[in-house]
Amino acid sequence: MRISSRGAVDPFIVMDVMEAAQKEEAKGRSIIHMEVGQPGTAAPEAARDLLSAEMAKDPMGYTVALGRPDLRARIAQLYKDWYGVSLSPDRIIVTAGSSAAFTLAFTTLFDATERVAIGEPGYPSYRNILKALSLEPVGIQTQAENRFQPSLEDIQAERDLAGLLVASPANPSGTMLDKPALKQLMDHCAAQNIAFISDEIYHGIQYEGRAVSALEISDDVFVINSFSKYFSMTGWRIGWMVVPQTHVRAVERLAQNMFICAPHAAQVAALGAMDAEAELTENFAVYAENRRLMLEELPKMGFDQIAPPDGAFYVYADITRWSDDSAAFCAEILADAGVSVTPGLDFDPKRGHQTIRFSYARSAADIREGLDRLAAFMAKRA
Amino acid sequence: MRISSRGAVDPFIVMDVMEAAQKEEAKGRSIIHMEVGQPGTAAPEAARDLLSAEMAKDPMGYTVALGRPDLRARIAQLYKDWYGVSLSPDRIIVTAGSSAAFTLAFTTLFDATERVAIGEPGYPSYRNILKALSLEPVGIQTQAENRFQPSLEDIQAERDLAGLLVASPANPSGTMLDKPALKQLMDHCAAQNIAFISDEIYHGIQYEGRAVSALEISDDVFVINSFSKYFSMTGWRIGWMVVPQTHVRAVERLAQNMFICAPHAAQVAALGAMDAEAELTENFAVYAENRRLMLEELPKMGFDQIAPPDGAFYVYADITRWSDDSAAFCAEILADAGVSVTPGLDFDPKRGHQTIRFSYARSAADIREGLDRLAAFMAKRA
Repeated sequence: MRISSRGAVDPFIVMDVMEAAQKEEAKGRSIIHMEVGQPGTAAPEAARDLLSAEMAKDPMGYTVALGRPDLRARIAQLYKDWYGVSLSPDRIIVTAGSSAAFTLAFTTLFDATERVAIGEPGYPSYRNILKALSLEPVGIQTQAENRFQPSLEDIQAERDLAGLLVASPANPSGTMLDKPALKQLMDHCAAQNIAFISDEIYHGIQYEGRAVSALEISDDVFVINSFSKYFSMTGWRIGWMVVPQTHVRAVERLAQNMFICAPHAAQVAALGAMDAEAELTENFAVYAENRRLMLEELPKMGFDQIAPPDGAFYVYADITRWSDDSAAFCAEILADAGVSVTPGLDFDPKRGHQTIRFSYARSAADIREGLDRLAAFMAKRA
Repeated sequence: MRISSRGAVDPFIVMDVMEAAQKEEAKGRSIIHMEVGQPGTAAPEAARDLLSAEMAKDPMGYTVALGRPDLRARIAQLYKDWYGVSLSPDRIIVTAGSSAAFTLAFTTLFDATERVAIGEPGYPSYRNILKALSLEPVGIQTQAENRFQPSLEDIQAERDLAGLLVASPANPSGTMLDKPALKQLMDHCAAQNIAFISDEIYHGIQYEGRAVSALEISDDVFVINSFSKYFSMTGWRIGWMVVPQTHVRAVERLAQNMFICAPHAAQVAALGAMDAEAELTENFAVYAENRRLMLEELPKMGFDQIAPPDGAFYVYADITRWSDDSAAFCAEILADAGVSVTPGLDFDPKRGHQTIRFSYARSAADIREGLDRLAAFMAKRA
């Protein structure tokens, strides 16, 4: 049977790395998971309790396409609490994770063949979802001196952009854009009729000051967020998007047709998670301690060229002193040290052969053991 | 901010009808819901029990993109049980409802601007998802004498088709394609390099013989199914797709990037639902009784031009003797009779102004009350 050129997107390498790690585990080996960007913790207890209660009394059929009104109102409250921003719940669209939000944003804003800029290194699915939707990803090669974030000059150098997508804190670097830097990019896009999309999925997981939401600067923006990271609900596939009032109806029609609604069970669990502050604060304390350990131990092993990890739960490290083939380097670490890490190729097709990403989203015990194994491996290798 | 031409898809009218009905209910009125294609029942108790147990012991993070291996194996078993077809679980892809399966199928098979044939009347989101993905839906005006299914002649009359999507039992008509008719269409498509997609979402809900799966005829087909209807799990957003072995890797890459995975909680619940035979048989008995009532009462009110409802839970009726404006007719029924039904415009943009769809997926008491109200309304109107 026929196959489309869109079917030829790159694999999401971290998923293949996960599979390789699982194969090692199936052989009975102990593997420390520093490859995947998901918390080791479950959804908060309050989330699971609310769902159990709701399952007993409601058939939980389709919700309206934009999401349960109580959840949309609760998310509006989060913007008040976190950023001091007043937001109409009408502008909040509940989605099946940030993945669905990207598809909805891209289809609402762009027509086939249009060009959308993304920072490299960056989340690989940006590029691949754009391709799958017949759009052209324009990879901006960001610089270490710009904290691996796109600069105004980078964007000005590109022609015919229909959109710009930024992430702060970013994956894989963990770096944040401060308010002036974010505003500079947004002002340029507004002036040039370039749609601005802000991926804020790591908000709440921040160590050096508070992450700034694009909604603190302008309403003329698509903001994408998720319950996967701070709220520890990856597998539930639940997130949200804030769009300009002028775009709500278009997004609603696309959502009705493409998704019907976000998973109802996950919407209920998300409502519960938003009131689980004590448990979420405990989860965050683990990330903070893991980060402290990582920043203390990795440089001792020679990983001293890293992006400043302001937020998220990643360390993006240069490996040029040892290797020019990050995939082989990661395979060696998995095979010899029993630690699973991700080659930079996922995040930066051009330069990622010289970088790797460590995730420290798991338990502190796991991270300590992983660092010990890495230290032994690097000592042997040096 | 800019907006794309893809953002201009038609609204999913039934969703707007639902909203109008909810507004009436908010005023304190009793409304009988014959508009929406979802069971009034919850997910089977076994589904909810399994999820509660799993939530207590597993963090339920991302699954692999193609779905939990145990669920894929269990779905393969269903093909053995229902159709006598042996299927490798490798070819089964767990998706976030049939909605996600359509997006994955269309992006895997077709490039922007390609033409895909769909029967009209048909499920409106086929057309709208195709448009959102920059594809061209080709509406086939099916005929009552062909049971509102595309015929070989209909398809032969079209040029440059990249794909054909059929549904049996169909929505809104409820009609089925028998094995020879299905095979005739599939053979033509295979010979012409037209990708064949079979929507089998209503399988299991059938009154006149057994629905035939395209997989009984050929492996060179995309088959889409869901836990929403027979398994009574609409809001969970969980379904599956069977693809040729040659297409698994392409679908996997797209799924990794566009969805990461189907909701983990729904995958667990689906596993439980598949062993809830007694409860599902009870649900089916309600549909069968509702159908008997509908076919007995509707003709007495004058609704005697209807498609033969072999399966699903719909009656698609002609209204030309009363009206040429199905939207106004449905609004009148909602306002005067307190019964919510769907105008045919959703399903057939050209001829749907002369048809309406009744859904009988709710409880028998609801259907009886709805029929009483309709009878009183039609008697007054005549």
